[in-house]
Amino acid sequence: MSFFRSRWVDVPEGVREAAAPGLPAGFRAAGVAAGIKPSGARDVGLLVADAEATTSAARFTRSGVLAAPVVVTRERARTGALRAIAVNAGNANAATGAPGLEVAARMQAAAADAVGTTPDRVAVASTGVIGVPLDAEVVIAGLGRAAAELRRDGDGDLQAAIMTTDAFEKRATLEVQLAGGAVRLCAQAKGAGMIQPSFATLLCFVQTDAALEAETADLLLGVCVKRSFERISVDGQLSTNDTAILMASGAGGVAVSPESEDELRLGQALDALLRQLALDVVRDGEGARRTGRVVVRGGHAPDVEAAARAVANSPLVKAALYGGDPNWGRIAQAVGAALPGTAPLAVDVAIEGVQVCAAGATVDADLAALGPAVAGDEVEYVVGLPGAGHETEVFFSDLGHEYVTINAEYTT
Amino acid sequence: MSFFRSRWVDVPEGVREAAAPGLPAGFRAAGVAAGIKPSGARDVGLLVADAEATTSAARFTRSGVLAAPVVVTRERARTGALRAIAVNAGNANAATGAPGLEVAARMQAAAADAVGTTPDRVAVASTGVIGVPLDAEVVIAGLGRAAAELRRDGDGDLQAAIMTTDAFEKRATLEVQLAGGAVRLCAQAKGAGMIQPSFATLLCFVQTDAALEAETADLLLGVCVKRSFERISVDGQLSTNDTAILMASGAGGVAVSPESEDELRLGQALDALLRQLALDVVRDGEGARRTGRVVVRGGHAPDVEAAARAVANSPLVKAALYGGDPNWGRIAQAVGAALPGTAPLAVDVAIEGVQVCAAGATVDADLAALGPAVAGDEVEYVVGLPGAGHETEVFFSDLGHEYVTINAEYTT
Repeated sequence: MSFFRSRWVDVPEGVREAAAPGLPAGFRAAGVAAGIKPSGARDVGLLVADAEATTSAARFTRSGVLAAPVVVTRERARTGALRAIAVNAGNANAATGAPGLEVAARMQAAAADAVGTTPDRVAVASTGVIGVPLDAEVVIAGLGRAAAELRRDGDGDLQAAIMTTDAFEKRATLEVQLAGGAVRLCAQAKGAGMIQPSFATLLCFVQTDAALEAETADLLLGVCVKRSFERISVDGQLSTNDTAILMASGAGGVAVSPESEDELRLGQALDALLRQLALDVVRDGEGARRTGRVVVRGGHAPDVEAAARAVANSPLVKAALYGGDPNWGRIAQAVGAALPGTAPLAVDVAIEGVQVCAAGATVDADLAALGPAVAGDEVEYVVGLPGAGHETEVFFSDLGHEYVTINAEYTT
Repeated sequence: MSFFRSRWVDVPEGVREAAAPGLPAGFRAAGVAAGIKPSGARDVGLLVADAEATTSAARFTRSGVLAAPVVVTRERARTGALRAIAVNAGNANAATGAPGLEVAARMQAAAADAVGTTPDRVAVASTGVIGVPLDAEVVIAGLGRAAAELRRDGDGDLQAAIMTTDAFEKRATLEVQLAGGAVRLCAQAKGAGMIQPSFATLLCFVQTDAALEAETADLLLGVCVKRSFERISVDGQLSTNDTAILMASGAGGVAVSPESEDELRLGQALDALLRQLALDVVRDGEGARRTGRVVVRGGHAPDVEAAARAVANSPLVKAALYGGDPNWGRIAQAVGAALPGTAPLAVDVAIEGVQVCAAGATVDADLAALGPAVAGDEVEYVVGLPGAGHETEVFFSDLGHEYVTINAEYTT
C-alpha cells in the first residue's frame, strides 16, 4: 500500500514516494527508550538540522490549557529559526504547573547543549498522560543518548519515540520535482483519530532540504495545516499539546522563492502530505473501520462550518458509520441541532452520491442499495444548505466498541 | 425504590408520591397498539382534559430541523389552552416535508373530533425514526380506539405508547400540599439519555388538577425546563421533536394565584419532578452504568456554560465515567478546548469533593482512594474557573459498549 491511500487526497504531479529512505539532506534524528513508557518502548526523540541557516515555522494548539512544552516553545524559542526538536512520549507534561515549565525548559537547554546550539533554537514537545509530573532527569538522560545516535535514517526511531496509542506509523519520505531540481520532503506524525484526543495529542514534524525563507515556511505550513489537521474531527484539535513544525535546511541546494511556481508546487506537495497524514490520524482509531468525510455547501460560512462540525462530531453519525448504516436522519438531526432557530431548513443530504433528502424532506432513495457503498473504508456525505458560495469539509472516524474499551479501561 | 432516587434532587416539603395511582382530577388518558411499532407494542396515545377552562403551556425544541408535529402544534394550536394531546411513537414524522405536515394536521383534527373539541386545542407529538412517511390512516384509527378507552388511570398506557428505546418508565404521580389544599401533579416522559438522541426524542407531559392561569403555567414550565431538560447532555436537546407540555384542569378546586406562596410551592414541586425525570432520561442509556454531574463556577457566564457543556459532551470524560476512572486530565482537556486563547487558565478540578487540580496544575491527591467514589451510580465533578458569581450544572450519561451496539446496529 502506498502512502497516498485515500481517494480524498490528490497527489500533485511531480510528487512521488522516495525510492531510498532517510531524512532530507541536513537532518539527523534518533529515538531512544528512556524509561517513560511502561512498555519500555522508545519514548525520547531528537531531531537536528545541521545547518546554521535552517528556517522553520510552527503551529500550536489554541487550547486554554496549554502543556508546558507548548508554552516554553512559544515563549522561549525562535519558531522561525529552529534547529532542533526535543520530544518525549508517555507523559504530556500538561497541567503540571510551574514545575512542569521548569522541566520543559530543562529539556530545551539539555537538547541545545547536546547538539551544539542555543536553547532558543530548540522546540520541545511532549505527548502522553496529562497531570502527571515528568521526570526531567529521565528525559535529559534520554536526550543525551539520542544525541549520540543521531543518523540521517533515524526518522523511523524518531517516529517510534513519539507514538503513544498509534496503531501504525504515520510518516512519509517524498521527492518533489521543482523547476530548480528535486527536493526531499519528510514527515513524522502521531495521533490516533478521535480515539483518545487528550492522550493522543497530535504531533507532526516536517523536514525539507529545500531552502525557504522563514516567511515562506510559515505561509505554507499555515495554509496546509488549515486544510489538513484543522479539518479532522479530533476533540484533540484543541488538545493541550498539539504541535506541527516545518523545518527547511536548504542543504539540497534548491531555493524556493516567494510567489514562485516552485513555491506553489512545494505547497501542493506539503498539502497532499499533511492531508494524508491527517486522514491517517482519523483512520487510526484502534478498531476503527471507516473514515467519513462530510462536505457542506451553502450561502453562510459560519452555518456551513457549524453544520460540518456537528455532523462530524455526532456520536450517532459516527456509530452509524461504524455500523455501515446509511441513516441520513442522523445527519439531518445534527445539522438542525447546529443551526437552531432556522426552521424550516431546506437541507439536502447525499450519501456516496445518492440524494436521500431534498429541501428538508425524504426522497424516494433506495437505502438498501446504498448498503455496499457505506460499508467501504471511506464514506462521503454531502450536505446542502440554502444559498451558495461557501464550502467546507471535515474528516471523521467512526465510533466503535474499541473506543469504549480503550477509553473506559485506560487507568490514570 | 422511590421516584426521587437522585441525591441531586431536593424533594421540597409537602411533596410526596401519591398513595393511589391515576391522573389528576379532570384528566383521562389511553394508549393503544396501532401498528406503527414493529414490535406490536402500544404506539398511539391520547390525553384529554375534560374541563373547557383547562390552561396549559408548552416548550419545544429549537432545532433548525423541526418535525411536522412541532410545526403544527406551534402554528395551529393555542398552547396556552390545550385540552388534548395526540401522540405516536415509532415514527417521528420529521424530515417528511409537506406530506408530513398534512399527516400531523390530520392527527390534530382527528383527535379533536374524537374528544369533542376544536383542533386548535389539540397538541400533536411524534417520536421515532426520522425521514420515514407516517401513515395517517394508521394513526387516526389508533386515536379513534384510544378515545374509546380513555380512563383516569390510563397514564400507564399513555406512558407505554410514547416509549421507544426507553428501558424503563419515566412517570410519577405526586401530591403537593398547598395552603389551599392538596393538588395532584402527574407526568409521563420518554427519552433515553445520550443513547440515541435522534431516535429517542424527549417528550414530557405534565398534568395538575390545580387551577392555574395560562401565564402561570407558562412561567412555571419555562423555569423548570431550564433547570431540568436543558441541563442534561442529550444531543437531542435540539432533536427534531422535543416537546414538553404542562396542563392544568382546575378540577381539584385549588387555585394557585400568581406570585403567591402556593405558586412558589407548586413551582418547587414541578422543579423536583422535572429534575428527577431529566436525570432518569440521562440514566436510561441501555447499559449505562453511571450518571455524571459537572458543576462549573467562575466569573464569566459564557465561559462557565461552555466549559460545563464541553465536559458533559466529551466522549473521553463519558468513557472514563463508564470505566470508573478518576481521569481528571480529560476534564482539564475538555475545559481548555472549550476556552481557546485563555492560556494559562487557572482551572480547579474536584471529583467527589477531592481536589485533584488547582490553578491548572496537578495536586498530590490520592487518585486510587477516589476509586470507590467514582464507581457509584452518580459521580460529581466540580470545575472552578477564574472569578466568581456564575455557576451552572450539566447532567450526563456515560459512554459504554451498549451505546455503540445500539447505534451501530440500528437499521434505518
